Amino acid sequence: MNRQITLASRPVGYPKESDFNLVEVPIPTPADNQVLVKTIYLSVDPYMRGRINSAKSYAANVDIDEVMVGGVIAQVIESKHPNFEVGDIVNANIGWQEYGVTEGNGLRKIDPRMVPISTGAGILGMPGLTAYFGLLEVGQLQELETVFVSGAAGAVGSVVGQIAKIKGCRVIGSAGTDEKIDYIVNELGFDAAFNYKHVTDYHAELQKLIPDGIDVYFDNVGGEITDAVFPNLRINGRVVICGQISQYNLEKPEMGPRFLWHMITKRARIEGFLVFDFVDHHPRALAQMAEWLQQGKLKYHETIEEGGIERAAAAFISMLKGGNIGKQLVKIAELNA
Amino acid sequence: MNRQITLASRPVGYPKESDFNLVEVPIPTPADNQVLVKTIYLSVDPYMRGRINSAKSYAANVDIDEVMVGGVIAQVIESKHPNFEVGDIVNANIGWQEYGVTEGNGLRKIDPRMVPISTGAGILGMPGLTAYFGLLEVGQLQELETVFVSGAAGAVGSVVGQIAKIKGCRVIGSAGTDEKIDYIVNELGFDAAFNYKHVTDYHAELQKLIPDGIDVYFDNVGGEITDAVFPNLRINGRVVICGQISQYNLEKPEMGPRFLWHMITKRARIEGFLVFDFVDHHPRALAQMAEWLQQGKLKYHETIEEGGIERAAAAFISMLKGGNIGKQLVKIAELNA
Repeated sequence: MNRQITLASRPVGYPKESDFNLVEVPIPTPADNQVLVKTIYLSVDPYMRGRINSAKSYAANVDIDEVMVGGVIAQVIESKHPNFEVGDIVNANIGWQEYGVTEGNGLRKIDPRMVPISTGAGILGMPGLTAYFGLLEVGQLQELETVFVSGAAGAVGSVVGQIAKIKGCRVIGSAGTDEKIDYIVNELGFDAAFNYKHVTDYHAELQKLIPDGIDVYFDNVGGEITDAVFPNLRINGRVVICGQISQYNLEKPEMGPRFLWHMITKRARIEGFLVFDFVDHHPRALAQMAEWLQQGKLKYHETIEEGGIERAAAAFISMLKGGNIGKQLVKIAELNA
Repeated sequence: MNRQITLASRPVGYPKESDFNLVEVPIPTPADNQVLVKTIYLSVDPYMRGRINSAKSYAANVDIDEVMVGGVIAQVIESKHPNFEVGDIVNANIGWQEYGVTEGNGLRKIDPRMVPISTGAGILGMPGLTAYFGLLEVGQLQELETVFVSGAAGAVGSVVGQIAKIKGCRVIGSAGTDEKIDYIVNELGFDAAFNYKHVTDYHAELQKLIPDGIDVYFDNVGGEITDAVFPNLRINGRVVICGQISQYNLEKPEMGPRFLWHMITKRARIEGFLVFDFVDHHPRALAQMAEWLQQGKLKYHETIEEGGIERAAAAFISMLKGGNIGKQLVKIAELNA
């Protein structure tokens, strides 16, 4: 049998485990040009919170009793596509389930001799690509600039900071535990960082750490940290809106100080993006990221929930509350030899 | 003698006439390469409100007892620069005064045989250039797109809408009197408009008038109208922040709903700008605008306060409160024959 996680109810505020159901269905059969895969790692990501709202977003929402959306690292166990053999490792979008059928066309293979396969859901997957395109294409980062990253210890933020260091920039981050601050400064090489739960005046903190101002702000968080950025932007500053995780679990919309007049005096730009819009350029970016990884210029960390598909909702909720360092994954099964 | 308006005190909220002083000083004498000019029209503009605050802006603030900054249309009455003769008409930045000395280099001449000289402070001056570069360069307007303009009957907004119509776009505007709505729709050719003082639900109004969404929002106003735009943006929508006049005269900063998450789902961009940043391209834009004006494709309206320099503060305050249609000017003196 195939175990799946479906949406039981639309969460109000933070999701609860009871907002999800574990159901059993028969393992599906692949048609021509399809493959049947077994999930090894399930990726849980902030964007999924938006997909279980009733409000229309950039993609279709998950309906009640529908399988949760999401990417997995999986192994092919039956192939009806000429490019795939039993045993191949792939990055597939089959959602939160132990087995799934997917089209072979467009499916990305991961070579387990080159990299740990879990990286296909992290630094060499959607979060890594998000960091790459957000910082370099949307943010148009230039050498010697100063970058501030919120959510700096997460799957995306931790890569943003490291790419900025590779590009010769000064990098400051914010995160929510002292362990995360230690990690990004002492392991990843951020120039400075602060624990936003221990700082009360974000504006003063930014002025202290970044007295000459911010060229690129990579925003994963939103809310009060982001408010404090606008007065601290440099002329022609860029604000990359990647995520607003502080806002996703609010029971009612939050108010904040109006700041658009800063955009005039700073001739600044705010821009949101989705990594899928850069899909034609993903191969080039992945090749660059893999090279940096092999050169030791990029590091990564994973927070892996080991308890199988029944722990997916718990891992998702933990990630939304900042429980992870680096990429949050759920280990679903062992790889077949 | 030369009469000047100086800043008496920093306004809290809307400026009052008592925040300004009228003073008399001797008429200055030009040095080599300078000219002495006599002001014919004084331009009063929203940006001046920011220059009399204590907070640092993009340019130096006006100090107490200093002459108010601003552009004028003036006539040369003494020249020590080889390019200028007595009688020439120029666009000069001498501030709020009847006479001033200015460098000849970089001074722009206006040919009174080609256009009414007042247009040099309006449609063929800073406001017209602001509309041109904001819409076409910052907003990257494309043919057949839909444009929404706030402050649509002002010196900038009225030009924005007309350029968008020239480019084959659909244009909707907001303004604060029925007379302004009538002007922009029936004189300038906007496709639709609403009086924001008679509409309570801006979101519903935008959905009604622009059901397919906004490609480019040209914002002169900020506040609640701007709040309503974000959910109504199209994918890849652009928000051009030109002005935030609703915010300039607040006694304390205003709060508004957080909206940055819309930037992600819409892959949208917000960008502020100053017309001075495009100075190298001003001649090209002015040539295009003059051609459109001569072809009858651009129209303009001026609200002229006739009472001389002593009415400058009153005209400025009236403009900040929306008393003008099109460009607000103050007539200071008659042209010499």
